[in-house]
Amino acid sequence: MSSSELSLAPIHRLIKKAGATRASEEAAEELRKILEEVGIAIAKEALSLAQYTGRRTIKREDIERAAKTLLRGFYT
Amino acid sequence: MSSSELSLAPIHRLIKKAGATRASEEAAEELRKILEEVGIAIAKEALSLAQYTGRRTIKREDIERAAKTLLRGFYT
Repeated sequence: MSSSELSLAPIHRLIKKAGATRASEEAAEELRKILEEVGIAIAKEALSLAQYTGRRTIKREDIERAAKTLLRGFYT
Repeated sequence: MSSSELSLAPIHRLIKKAGATRASEEAAEELRKILEEVGIAIAKEALSLAQYTGRRTIKREDIERAAKTLLRGFYT
């Protein structure tokens, strides 16, 4: 199992931003896990896109295109 | 425009975990923006689900169901 990169405090702030006043600790941990999975998946696809064009550095447009591909349902 | 909740350092670590050694600052900022949008959207849907069942506290299962609904393409 991989360790977490994101802290729980900012995750709780995101939940509060969404209008919720109460969330269980397990709910915040679940959201953190999901955001990390999504973030790593987008970064992997972005890396693949960068390499496809012969670059070694991931640029903003790689992240944008990767997110559109992986989060198709979310952005449409 | 809303301020950022997530810091850039953990975002860079996620990118590194994906196998990338180099990413521009703009790429990390873009990934942060996307993860915050996704996180807030999931939290909003989870809040709506909790209220639907008459609860005021968001639980883990609300987050799970919200993510499956919003990230349909990602999880299938």
